[in-house]
Amino acid sequence: MMPLVPQTVVLRWGHRPRDFRVTTHVALTARVFGANGLILSDVEDYEIKTTVASITKDWGGEFSIEIGKPWREAVQEWRRSGGIVVHLTMYGENVETSNVVERIRGSSKKILVLVGSQKVPREFYSKEISDFNVSIGNQPHSEVAALAVFLDRLYQGRELDRTFEKARLRVVPTPHGKHLIEN
Amino acid sequence: MMPLVPQTVVLRWGHRPRDFRVTTHVALTARVFGANGLILSDVEDYEIKTTVASITKDWGGEFSIEIGKPWREAVQEWRRSGGIVVHLTMYGENVETSNVVERIRGSSKKILVLVGSQKVPREFYSKEISDFNVSIGNQPHSEVAALAVFLDRLYQGRELDRTFEKARLRVVPTPHGKHLIEN
Repeated sequence: MMPLVPQTVVLRWGHRPRDFRVTTHVALTARVFGANGLILSDVEDYEIKTTVASITKDWGGEFSIEIGKPWREAVQEWRRSGGIVVHLTMYGENVETSNVVERIRGSSKKILVLVGSQKVPREFYSKEISDFNVSIGNQPHSEVAALAVFLDRLYQGRELDRTFEKARLRVVPTPHGKHLIEN
Repeated sequence: MMPLVPQTVVLRWGHRPRDFRVTTHVALTARVFGANGLILSDVEDYEIKTTVASITKDWGGEFSIEIGKPWREAVQEWRRSGGIVVHLTMYGENVETSNVVERIRGSSKKILVLVGSQKVPREFYSKEISDFNVSIGNQPHSEVAALAVFLDRLYQGRELDRTFEKARLRVVPTPHGKHLIEN
């Protein structure tokens, strides 16, 4: 599988037990839309890791999950290793009406994509933490939707035309019915 | 607010109580990405309606929510009034590697977007129910992500550059910090 450029990792902040299904959607969306892995920061929910690992085992490719790292430590490590941080938030620069995605792509650096839940620390919006604050529409909706559209635009659709290596299951796209191949 | 063309309504099938947050994300995503409304079929969960109505009241625009209608009835009514049905599924034609979105747009008909949960009735894949089965990547991920990317491509980003009428709250996009206007 050709690696997508720039490399991305998603940091999911603020997960609570009742968010289990939404966080699972965040992780699976990150995987399919081209991210290399997910950091579930500050909490220890290992069930997410098991769920996503079993999907990756069946459906191929590589996707790392790291559980419990404090978000500040994750951001500092990322920066030290030469990456930038993009925070997805309804308050940021609009992905459609500004050229923010072009500027991010132009930086040619690997990207930590910060995805919060309801209310994130004020610091997330500051220059010290986030190089870019990016909005997918400046209206409240869903971190899953925001992540999918951000990555789809960053990778310009190439992420949806990849073959996942070592897959046990594979779909043959079809206009009607279901065509699944099991190896 | 200029109406987007073609008109879309989302039908959410298979909602269970534990899906409350995911269904809320589906509804809010439908609203922001240009759909006119949501039908939550076959179940009676009125809390979703209250949650989404309160967002619409604060953030503007119009968005209808219909609760409990049987899915088959909703599909039949939609067809009788001249609309087509698009089912979002990992088994369908790939949005990136086929021209399915162009064909859908070319039909110039209003669209009922069928969004399931884990396992939908086999009929959903048939010609009798779905004119198009569309996949966002032929891998398992999230109906929220699938809906967002499908609508973003259908409306070619125009949906994210709209002013929502009669909004009490409005974001001024900004590279850092939060800028919220309350009327």
